[in-house]
Amino acid sequence: MDYQQLIEEVYNEVKSANPRGKVADYIPELAEVDGDKFGIALVDLEGNVFGVGDYEIPFSIQSISKVHTLTMVAHIFQSKLWSRVNVEPSGNPFNSIAQLEFEKGIPRNPFINAGALVITDALTSKFDDPIAEISKFINELSGKECVRINQEVLDSELKHSERNTALAYFLKAHQNFNNKVEDVLKTYVSHCAMEMCCVDLARSISYLANDGYSIYAKREIVTESYARRINALMLTCGFYDEAGEFAYRVGLPGKSGVGGGVAAIMPHKFSIGVWSPELNEKGNSVKAIMALELLTDKLKFSLF
Amino acid sequence: MDYQQLIEEVYNEVKSANPRGKVADYIPELAEVDGDKFGIALVDLEGNVFGVGDYEIPFSIQSISKVHTLTMVAHIFQSKLWSRVNVEPSGNPFNSIAQLEFEKGIPRNPFINAGALVITDALTSKFDDPIAEISKFINELSGKECVRINQEVLDSELKHSERNTALAYFLKAHQNFNNKVEDVLKTYVSHCAMEMCCVDLARSISYLANDGYSIYAKREIVTESYARRINALMLTCGFYDEAGEFAYRVGLPGKSGVGGGVAAIMPHKFSIGVWSPELNEKGNSVKAIMALELLTDKLKFSLF
Amino acid sequence: MDYQQLIEEVYNEVKSANPRGKVADYIPELAEVDGDKFGIALVDLEGNVFGVGDYEIPFSIQSISKVHTLTMVAHIFQSKLWSRVNVEPSGNPFNSIAQLEFEKGIPRNPFINAGALVITDALTSKFDDPIAEISKFINELSGKECVRINQEVLDSELKHSERNTALAYFLKAHQNFNNKVEDVLKTYVSHCAMEMCCVDLARSISYLANDGYSIYAKREIVTESYARRINALMLTCGFYDEAGEFAYRVGLPGKSGVGGGVAAIMPHKFSIGVWSPELNEKGNSVKAIMALELLTDKLKFSLF
Amino acid sequence: MDYQQLIEEVYNEVKSANPRGKVADYIPELAEVDGDKFGIALVDLEGNVFGVGDYEIPFSIQSISKVHTLTMVAHIFQSKLWSRVNVEPSGNPFNSIAQLEFEKGIPRNPFINAGALVITDALTSKFDDPIAEISKFINELSGKECVRINQEVLDSELKHSERNTALAYFLKAHQNFNNKVEDVLKTYVSHCAMEMCCVDLARSISYLANDGYSIYAKREIVTESYARRINALMLTCGFYDEAGEFAYRVGLPGKSGVGGGVAAIMPHKFSIGVWSPELNEKGNSVKAIMALELLTDKLKFSLF
Repeated sequence: MDYQQLIEEVYNEVKSANPRGKVADYIPELAEVDGDKFGIALVDLEGNVFGVGDYEIPFSIQSISKVHTLTMVAHIFQSKLWSRVNVEPSGNPFNSIAQLEFEKGIPRNPFINAGALVITDALTSKFDDPIAEISKFINELSGKECVRINQEVLDSELKHSERNTALAYFLKAHQNFNNKVEDVLKTYVSHCAMEMCCVDLARSISYLANDGYSIYAKREIVTESYARRINALMLTCGFYDEAGEFAYRVGLPGKSGVGGGVAAIMPHKFSIGVWSPELNEKGNSVKAIMALELLTDKLKFSLF
Repeated sequence: MDYQQLIEEVYNEVKSANPRGKVADYIPELAEVDGDKFGIALVDLEGNVFGVGDYEIPFSIQSISKVHTLTMVAHIFQSKLWSRVNVEPSGNPFNSIAQLEFEKGIPRNPFINAGALVITDALTSKFDDPIAEISKFINELSGKECVRINQEVLDSELKHSERNTALAYFLKAHQNFNNKVEDVLKTYVSHCAMEMCCVDLARSISYLANDGYSIYAKREIVTESYARRINALMLTCGFYDEAGEFAYRVGLPGKSGVGGGVAAIMPHKFSIGVWSPELNEKGNSVKAIMALELLTDKLKFSLF
Repeated sequence: MDYQQLIEEVYNEVKSANPRGKVADYIPELAEVDGDKFGIALVDLEGNVFGVGDYEIPFSIQSISKVHTLTMVAHIFQSKLWSRVNVEPSGNPFNSIAQLEFEKGIPRNPFINAGALVITDALTSKFDDPIAEISKFINELSGKECVRINQEVLDSELKHSERNTALAYFLKAHQNFNNKVEDVLKTYVSHCAMEMCCVDLARSISYLANDGYSIYAKREIVTESYARRINALMLTCGFYDEAGEFAYRVGLPGKSGVGGGVAAIMPHKFSIGVWSPELNEKGNSVKAIMALELLTDKLKFSLF
Repeated sequence: MDYQQLIEEVYNEVKSANPRGKVADYIPELAEVDGDKFGIALVDLEGNVFGVGDYEIPFSIQSISKVHTLTMVAHIFQSKLWSRVNVEPSGNPFNSIAQLEFEKGIPRNPFINAGALVITDALTSKFDDPIAEISKFINELSGKECVRINQEVLDSELKHSERNTALAYFLKAHQNFNNKVEDVLKTYVSHCAMEMCCVDLARSISYLANDGYSIYAKREIVTESYARRINALMLTCGFYDEAGEFAYRVGLPGKSGVGGGVAAIMPHKFSIGVWSPELNEKGNSVKAIMALELLTDKLKFSLF
């Protein structure tokens, strides 16, 4: 399989179809990003890198970082974590607080905001400097110093974090949040404000395509069982309220972010990072999803 | 009508029936209150005071203070306020956040927690020292320096205010909250932690029985129209999720608090303060409600 | 008090202000009604009748009939009924099924559709020919043969009754519905399709202004206590999701229907029927509400 | 791979661990089934059959039949269907009506009851005798006359179908239901009351492991793309509110029924039918899920 040719074909077809969406505009720093950006990077399990378009330009990974934090916590806490966060699809918007009330403070899964806040709270309990640890961990996964926190994005998100703050206090009211809200929120917003390019992102989740072993970190990051757990969660919950559609159209475990990035893996084959800032109404990158769909079509691959 | 004889009869009948409930226990300071306490005070529109039982012992007025803060804000803001708070019964628990989400950050009425927080936020915008102003206002309404903030209750409530903090940030996320959350919460918790006895409480809402004019403050507190608005709100929303039952059994505009107090008025006749700490499962004082029901029965009075 | 002059003044002021709404259009028969129709009838407790405008033209009373059926059932079933229907405001649209699910098949109050269906189910259990009994009862209350079921409205409503049918089956799933759904629905739709004019409507609820005694039927229809229960329910739940607003603006116990009618009472004084087909967005007649508000203003009357 | 030895090992380990649950008891006919029954059948894509335990005893397939009806409809209606039913996980109980109200009559997916009713409605529009067509279709898929409708189960389910009837009328109220409710319900209940043994069930879904081609029917049942759609739906929505857990523990597209059956496929390898009547609290067979988990563990297979 010539992966370079494959992703170039995909890239050109998407460029030609040119599906459009809307750049996230809830903070000015994201709203100003050039909507035409588009890059794809694929890394196989030998570490070969294939890239096309804007694949070396760093972008805001946003919610994709929740895969990394979940990995850190899963490793540390083993199964205890699952009494604090459920593993089922939500069927509600990612920032819904009503569901959290109906379900008495146990978030539906670790990728909706409430669930990710519980994860970051767990990291805050564990580490003195959780932001540094998260950066260090992602750098290790990527095999180089690649993570940079965009301070403007961080500051801006903090200014617009009322809803996440509400979620955090609501979790606290249900004894499912142990640290100071402001500390956890700062860490949460910091890891969402991290910037990486498609290549480094693809490398950073390569272990999930490899039964938990990272060829960059040169160690088992999580057990095979935990890698499977994370992949199952990405497949059923990784695309906000569009997980079922993505499972059908693409059929790969993946996670998207409102910065327009998508990270996905093909088990035992490769990991991939795609970036294009324009989003559909569900908050997923239109070009990235189309690219991944074409890719699995061309590979005649599917989970199913 | 011999009001003294009337309330003594009521007092004795309730004492004899001795209906029991459960003292609020979400903070230790309320949990420790003697559940057997029971007092009634009635003040007529000439200022005559009638009392029985523990009617001169101060207790935590809690949510009854929302009547006073609503009065302060209604006076200041006129009809503009009603774009920020609705005036309809909630049909949900007083501290529900799901309804606030469904209704996009506009609380159902000023007596559920979210609505009261909006009111306190408005007061915080208006006054440099809103706590002092609220105390001053209630003292004026009662005709004497009677309000005391219980510092232990205040501190304890602040420690348990995660859910209200969540509501406040959620309101902020919907641009329906203008001040610092911690400032507003401190004011909110402070007015809930105020202590008054039945007499002073009855005097403090006497203006609502008198078309808005307070014989203690010797001035019009609100217009007749606003007094009517507040009374309508007390009747339809004053008893958490038991407003319909109270309207039927008692038929007076009133407001209860989890400290076991109830303040109510009979239009153009009198105002009344009743206190007994044991609550039914809806959070309303069992003895106070029974007392008010007997009272209106004996008076053969009803709104209807 | 010259009631005739009073209602003429009110009538003229409303005519002059001419507030507009939208005629109910979910069935063609209601949609075709002339939106300009407007009538007021007031009957005092001596049986004097005062009328203005289209007060003798029959119109579709729709949900106002729920007051009559509730009366029939309250009388028969005493307090047992209240285990099947609650008495609290709903805080949700009148035809919501979600709340019914959350509250496990117990409707919030007898005036939302689910609650009214339970009432009609109880009547169906009691009577062989419940439609005839309801007609007979309302005729007795009005002191003459005035009720006519509009067959076109009935047929049309039956054709559009899917949502009420869903509510009925949902009640049945919760063992809160004892008869055949189609039988109860036919009765329900029949009493909603009844037509009366303002005068007869006002006469038919006169007992609620008179502690339960009807001067037309010449008997106690319900006890004073039950009259009070119904009045409390009308005040807190009688105007769909606008009960709080109506309590404030008008301050009378009343019930509205999507045909544009409103029936209300002033305790110990009079009952009143108002009709004008154009509705506000909450489903209440704009002219009828304005008329009642002016009336209580002019009377300087209020519950509060 | 010796599949016979594999499933025998799995069978023995489950028997030895003997996890217990509770037989469905909402109708007497299901409640009376022997909870100890347990069978596994696996069929590979050459048609070889492997079985152990009670694998040849027919049981009530219940909701598993929704896979067959979805297949029939997908084939007929192509993409038009997806405007009437969504493809996302529900995050709510399978028979919830509240979500259907919030989402205006469009069921979340074809496997919750509301969604399956829409599918059966579509079949009812297409066929004069939909029950016969469904039986014929499943027989064709299984390669023999194996389907039998249990008349006692059918009658009993019809008697307890109030909630599904409510869902159907609610769909009708939203113009998402075209036929007579009683007709569709009868078809729906009939296909749920079908009985098959593990072998025939496994054969009947073999095409989903085979890109849409059935070796028993000797034809393409659905396109490869539609097979993928159905598999994606089974993976994300096939296990009620336990889909995420199943995706992780088992990692195969599958569908369970309250009769205790589970049908699942391993793409390009085999299909499998497992039956054991005792259910966990989410309504899925405890032994069947444990068996499938052991099976994929032993095969070192996972989607991920």
